Amino acid sequence: MSKYFDEIDPVKFEGRDSENPLAFKYYDSSKILMGKSMEEHLRFAVCYWHNFCWDGFDIFGSGTFNRPWHGVTNDQAAAEAKLEAAFSFFNKLGNPYFCFHDTDVMAAAETPKEHVENFAAIVDKIEEKIAVSKTKLLWGTANMFSHPRYMAGASTNPNPDVAAFAALQVKHCLEATHRLGGSGYVLWGGREGYDTILNTNVAQEMKQLGRFLTMVVEHKHKIGFKGDIWVEPKPHEPTKHQYDRDVGTVYGFLKEYGLEKEVGVNIEPNHATMAGNNFEHEIEMANAFGIFGSIDFNRGDPQNGWDTDQFPNDLRETTMALYYILKGGGFKNGGANFDAKVRRQSIDAKDLFYGHIGGMDLLARALENAAKMIENDKLQEFKDSRYKNWSSGHGAKMLDGKMSLDEMAAISLQKNNSPKPMSGRQEGLENIVTQFLK
Amino acid sequence: MSKYFDEIDPVKFEGRDSENPLAFKYYDSSKILMGKSMEEHLRFAVCYWHNFCWDGFDIFGSGTFNRPWHGVTNDQAAAEAKLEAAFSFFNKLGNPYFCFHDTDVMAAAETPKEHVENFAAIVDKIEEKIAVSKTKLLWGTANMFSHPRYMAGASTNPNPDVAAFAALQVKHCLEATHRLGGSGYVLWGGREGYDTILNTNVAQEMKQLGRFLTMVVEHKHKIGFKGDIWVEPKPHEPTKHQYDRDVGTVYGFLKEYGLEKEVGVNIEPNHATMAGNNFEHEIEMANAFGIFGSIDFNRGDPQNGWDTDQFPNDLRETTMALYYILKGGGFKNGGANFDAKVRRQSIDAKDLFYGHIGGMDLLARALENAAKMIENDKLQEFKDSRYKNWSSGHGAKMLDGKMSLDEMAAISLQKNNSPKPMSGRQEGLENIVTQFLK
Amino acid sequence: MSKYFDEIDPVKFEGRDSENPLAFKYYDSSKILMGKSMEEHLRFAVCYWHNFCWDGFDIFGSGTFNRPWHGVTNDQAAAEAKLEAAFSFFNKLGNPYFCFHDTDVMAAAETPKEHVENFAAIVDKIEEKIAVSKTKLLWGTANMFSHPRYMAGASTNPNPDVAAFAALQVKHCLEATHRLGGSGYVLWGGREGYDTILNTNVAQEMKQLGRFLTMVVEHKHKIGFKGDIWVEPKPHEPTKHQYDRDVGTVYGFLKEYGLEKEVGVNIEPNHATMAGNNFEHEIEMANAFGIFGSIDFNRGDPQNGWDTDQFPNDLRETTMALYYILKGGGFKNGGANFDAKVRRQSIDAKDLFYGHIGGMDLLARALENAAKMIENDKLQEFKDSRYKNWSSGHGAKMLDGKMSLDEMAAISLQKNNSPKPMSGRQEGLENIVTQFLK
Amino acid sequence: MSKYFDEIDPVKFEGRDSENPLAFKYYDSSKILMGKSMEEHLRFAVCYWHNFCWDGFDIFGSGTFNRPWHGVTNDQAAAEAKLEAAFSFFNKLGNPYFCFHDTDVMAAAETPKEHVENFAAIVDKIEEKIAVSKTKLLWGTANMFSHPRYMAGASTNPNPDVAAFAALQVKHCLEATHRLGGSGYVLWGGREGYDTILNTNVAQEMKQLGRFLTMVVEHKHKIGFKGDIWVEPKPHEPTKHQYDRDVGTVYGFLKEYGLEKEVGVNIEPNHATMAGNNFEHEIEMANAFGIFGSIDFNRGDPQNGWDTDQFPNDLRETTMALYYILKGGGFKNGGANFDAKVRRQSIDAKDLFYGHIGGMDLLARALENAAKMIENDKLQEFKDSRYKNWSSGHGAKMLDGKMSLDEMAAISLQKNNSPKPMSGRQEGLENIVTQFLK
Repeated sequence: MSKYFDEIDPVKFEGRDSENPLAFKYYDSSKILMGKSMEEHLRFAVCYWHNFCWDGFDIFGSGTFNRPWHGVTNDQAAAEAKLEAAFSFFNKLGNPYFCFHDTDVMAAAETPKEHVENFAAIVDKIEEKIAVSKTKLLWGTANMFSHPRYMAGASTNPNPDVAAFAALQVKHCLEATHRLGGSGYVLWGGREGYDTILNTNVAQEMKQLGRFLTMVVEHKHKIGFKGDIWVEPKPHEPTKHQYDRDVGTVYGFLKEYGLEKEVGVNIEPNHATMAGNNFEHEIEMANAFGIFGSIDFNRGDPQNGWDTDQFPNDLRETTMALYYILKGGGFKNGGANFDAKVRRQSIDAKDLFYGHIGGMDLLARALENAAKMIENDKLQEFKDSRYKNWSSGHGAKMLDGKMSLDEMAAISLQKNNSPKPMSGRQEGLENIVTQFLK
Repeated sequence: MSKYFDEIDPVKFEGRDSENPLAFKYYDSSKILMGKSMEEHLRFAVCYWHNFCWDGFDIFGSGTFNRPWHGVTNDQAAAEAKLEAAFSFFNKLGNPYFCFHDTDVMAAAETPKEHVENFAAIVDKIEEKIAVSKTKLLWGTANMFSHPRYMAGASTNPNPDVAAFAALQVKHCLEATHRLGGSGYVLWGGREGYDTILNTNVAQEMKQLGRFLTMVVEHKHKIGFKGDIWVEPKPHEPTKHQYDRDVGTVYGFLKEYGLEKEVGVNIEPNHATMAGNNFEHEIEMANAFGIFGSIDFNRGDPQNGWDTDQFPNDLRETTMALYYILKGGGFKNGGANFDAKVRRQSIDAKDLFYGHIGGMDLLARALENAAKMIENDKLQEFKDSRYKNWSSGHGAKMLDGKMSLDEMAAISLQKNNSPKPMSGRQEGLENIVTQFLK
Repeated sequence: MSKYFDEIDPVKFEGRDSENPLAFKYYDSSKILMGKSMEEHLRFAVCYWHNFCWDGFDIFGSGTFNRPWHGVTNDQAAAEAKLEAAFSFFNKLGNPYFCFHDTDVMAAAETPKEHVENFAAIVDKIEEKIAVSKTKLLWGTANMFSHPRYMAGASTNPNPDVAAFAALQVKHCLEATHRLGGSGYVLWGGREGYDTILNTNVAQEMKQLGRFLTMVVEHKHKIGFKGDIWVEPKPHEPTKHQYDRDVGTVYGFLKEYGLEKEVGVNIEPNHATMAGNNFEHEIEMANAFGIFGSIDFNRGDPQNGWDTDQFPNDLRETTMALYYILKGGGFKNGGANFDAKVRRQSIDAKDLFYGHIGGMDLLARALENAAKMIENDKLQEFKDSRYKNWSSGHGAKMLDGKMSLDEMAAISLQKNNSPKPMSGRQEGLENIVTQFLK
Repeated sequence: MSKYFDEIDPVKFEGRDSENPLAFKYYDSSKILMGKSMEEHLRFAVCYWHNFCWDGFDIFGSGTFNRPWHGVTNDQAAAEAKLEAAFSFFNKLGNPYFCFHDTDVMAAAETPKEHVENFAAIVDKIEEKIAVSKTKLLWGTANMFSHPRYMAGASTNPNPDVAAFAALQVKHCLEATHRLGGSGYVLWGGREGYDTILNTNVAQEMKQLGRFLTMVVEHKHKIGFKGDIWVEPKPHEPTKHQYDRDVGTVYGFLKEYGLEKEVGVNIEPNHATMAGNNFEHEIEMANAFGIFGSIDFNRGDPQNGWDTDQFPNDLRETTMALYYILKGGGFKNGGANFDAKVRRQSIDAKDLFYGHIGGMDLLARALENAAKMIENDKLQEFKDSRYKNWSSGHGAKMLDGKMSLDEMAAISLQKNNSPKPMSGRQEGLENIVTQFLK
């Protein structure tokens, strides 16, 4: 299996003038910026699903990839062959982390018992692989959306037996993540929402989801997992509507169940834009609410209405994203997962490398830009000066809760003038950003 | 001024076979359904702004309407002429309520002092009008988005003097609403958001907004206003991003500032769809969180990307909206505001009537449908049966917080089967709804 | 196989007060309107693909339906079992027509030779079925998007061998359609477009497509097929961009290759809306250009960004669609195909019936409304009066090409007034439509 | 008036390390690339409307800019003051061209006679200005959308007198463009479409538009104007639907009226994306059909649903746009118009400069990137190899019209294999582009 990548040499950093498409031009893992290496800053993870599980099918056509490890049956041998291929890829690419769903890595299972057994069998093998590789686990997650049993939801299913199956999956996946040294655990509620509100009790389902999430948090503490729990916002797809729509909505949900100190968010740019927000907005909302966790760094296509999960190639957006991430303190337990899906026509082994090299280089380049922006932080300077009147006088008193509506109104009447407007300077600020894009 | 509507006779109910375009075919104000008259159920309000203030301009062209009360200067005489026209319209249409922004009704003002004086002058006149009319005030609101001083926000402005001016407006408008017998007060944050995140301190601005809203609530209690305070969600337009994006986001915001028992939402269908939600979703979210307040019943155009504020004409959507509103207990202090904007080409006096008659008839028809659906509530029956397993056994225990993840997982293992799927029956349920559409 | 539908009785017309969910309430096939029966007007076709081929999978999850005819291997026996099931369904539903892709009906094939053989084998069986059934073929089409060979296009593929395979499929499918008595042949270019313009020669590909379409038309004449050829517009999905974007674009394409008298369009509402047009617009554009052909009557979900292919349930939109179709002369060789896809959770046999009954009833109801609107055509009256000045004087002369810019300008100068505006009466017209919705 | 820009020094090229926000870092007008200077390649034009006419109003708020030349009345003196300001701006910025609508530059007019007189009066003044300035006219256009008379269309108006007024405007504006040395004339049909299809005769209106456009072309030849006529595609806004939706639709329209050799397109990126296409697509479509003309280089905001007309700041998109423009032969009579609108909060004189400097620098940078891409054209190489089989054998014969469907099918049968797939290499190609972004 590992032979599939034999034609590819380990990917090396060769600098920005290299013409080698299979070399890094910007990602120099040990380069130090702001006191940390690029590797430590970006904490790259390669995802298992799109790279090693997906066969290239889409809703209008069947698989195109012909990966040698995709056999007819997904049994333990197939799972091990896939694992072999995955680590062979990791070893060549040099990514420090990977991520997986339980069902990505294991032999297919139908019953709860099979699930537990098959998952346990492969976790042993993963542990062995990690022990001898430089690639570690960033986070794990349970796939509670692909099996038909989840067609009407996992924890929000009308049938509590499905929620029980989901509990079984999460319990084992969280424990495995803990054992394998992961620093995070993600819940993406692909089916936690509805196809039609006509058959859905929204209040009931949110209660189910709230209680389920609480049980996960309680279990984390029970087993002593020190990593983070993150919810991944997405507005729709596969369902018409998902409860974990965007960061603002997730925050309201967490507050409702008293989980806002326990659970953070795993943000994905294309999920942000599908919800009508831009990527930077979601990062800043998470920073403002103190729930920033991790990123799935995929772009979408603004002309299409679904998630394309492509690797990032927008230098401006990615630079700004890293600027806000760094300003928020950078990644802690989280990292930059590449949930990057090569296109269905990209059928060669090296296309997988192009996708990852392109994305990693872009983030490295964006990181350098962002670090320079922070060093000479003209945006912050402008903002500080723009809001400075709120740090003293009636502004500060209002924020401190020491002014009533009557008192603020009285100040206005007393000054009796129309406040002088000040330019928002958007074009000038945009030019500053452009100049940092190197 | 009132002569403008002289050509129009008072609008009467003539029944569904009437061919008179200026009669109601469905809205029979005193007809009793579910123990209340149509008038009491729907609590129709006509808005001041689109009907009496807007002159037909759009971003690409100037006004088309030539209303006689639109003089060159907006002074007290002009404000009174407009008021005369408005009540002449109300008297012919027979709407029980109206709504206004402070700046809609008053002479133009630049300074705080002028604002207070000009607003007070017209409030006296409104009070006189209400005293002798069957049309009462539903809710008031302060316009804190049209004047250039608000270009960078009202309470979220970088300049606290602007927030002070906003406080002045809200104080006087809330007090006038109280005095005029209104049962609600709305805050729509048209400029409470940002044009570019580059010049915006998101966390700071949300704090300003949170504190401002708290001050409004405190003032309401101070003056003894027994009506409700509602925030109106909208994702964007005029700004790129507004903080009060949708019901889920507003709820998170209210929870953050401990206002979820004090503040509700005024939902608008086209704001819902611009945020990527459908109308029913927003109603059900508000019901689930206990913050449902009032509705601005305007439709949008799904092929356009901005708010068109047209009167509702989708019988299916409106029937379902009323079904969920009635199931949530119906309007209390809120009502069905018609923030309905006739098209720029609809330049005749009677076009204003067509817009309102069309919308009121559609809501009346939808109300009849919804009442019949509730009488014979097949949707509820299906839902009750679909979720029934959550009301006993491990489902109920989980919801009561009496199950751990381990315990739920154990139940799954013990049963050791893949839960039997059950049809979601979407097509059948949709057919049921269709059959109720009469 | 046919046993799958044994629980269902033949669907009968029972009238609008029937409470039987498995009866027609509006579709009374022999009812005469405007001189033709409902059956003759609507020419309902049931599609093969979503009903008998799709197993309920979506991009995030595997099949949910467990239809008995979905075996492990798609061989001739499986194809025949599927055919048996399909006609058993048709016989119960009473649809006068069906539609298919070649690959829907046949045993799987890899090579050209296998394709020809396997397709021929099933066409014989279809012919036998049609002979003894009341359900006939409306149109056929070749699936040139699902097989991996078409990942980069069929006729627009960079490899002419793929275009040759496509030619083989179309030749045999067009000939089979002819032999089976179909009155139309559809080409939907799912992969005739691009994933990325970076690897695409747009001009070259359009030339390939233009020539291919010409060859199909030539072949039609060669074999004496008297039915129509239709292209089905869709802007994207599965590819980022498809050449047959919408009716206007298709018309330009047809004109470029001189095919506008030979090829029409098969319009689908959700394809229209994904392209940013509404359904009625596409019908009227096709009418204006003289290329109206047939309809795939599926709705989408305006909150989602992909094609959901659901059965129609919007009475207003469907009424207006039928109004414009009838005004354009009604269906000739085309019909109302139900490319209707039940939801993934709708796993029961009867859900398939609900989907079709709901759609057929809605179209029947819309047909009655549309016929009444035409009988008393207030919209046409308004339009006739609105444009009447173009039928005489300088208007008529300009349309006849008898006025120059100078002459028109001179008329304006000579009249020297600002033309008097006239209300567009949108609200009033919308109310008229609403009143026809029964 | 010219004093308004007194604080600003003439903008100079200072190179990419300059920290001066009011200097060019990339736009070095005389720098030679591919045999032409940057100035000759890019042919920058500054637009009159957003810069000198718009006062900062939006649909929710009034003007914020307080430009000194915006008096109460728009009379000849005001028009001249505005002209003074405009050329003062041009002289500082150094743009070689400008663009205008007739109503942008002239004193307000109500009647045809006034229009002719007032326009003539200012054209004399413009001519004097051009004579002594380095800034020349790129193109002119008549504003046939802002005045209420055009609320229901210009040439597509139900009233032919409105079309006559439009003819008058176009005649005089086209003649003035000719006299002032412009090389292009643009028609943007802001109101040439419909608000509601209910009151619209689509076929009739397209005929009116087709005949009008023909008259314009005939007039161009009559007066000996050697420049180009361009239509500007836009799908909607201000109307729900415009006939000149996108390049593909416009091409169909031109073909219908035999104008495809006479009329080209003026493409705007945000109009492209509002129509669901990307910018490069529209350029390549125009290249493929031979109708490429000019560009309005404005970006939009993918999170908003309306045209924001902001200056370009996406280096990747702009580089690719210039790559395709250069590959198509570059600008001839067209150029890079900056229809760039500063934000409503950007109220200072220098904000206008930031907007233009940012955009011009970005295009200059993109031009350098694009020129290097063409020098070492790896994208073309890949494409040439990808399609090479179409230049010989049955591929070439098919394109030449020498193969029938039967013959192509026979080739497939004879080869009898499934054609070998080839990677589309999207990720690799995207990485190549990224590497060219300097």
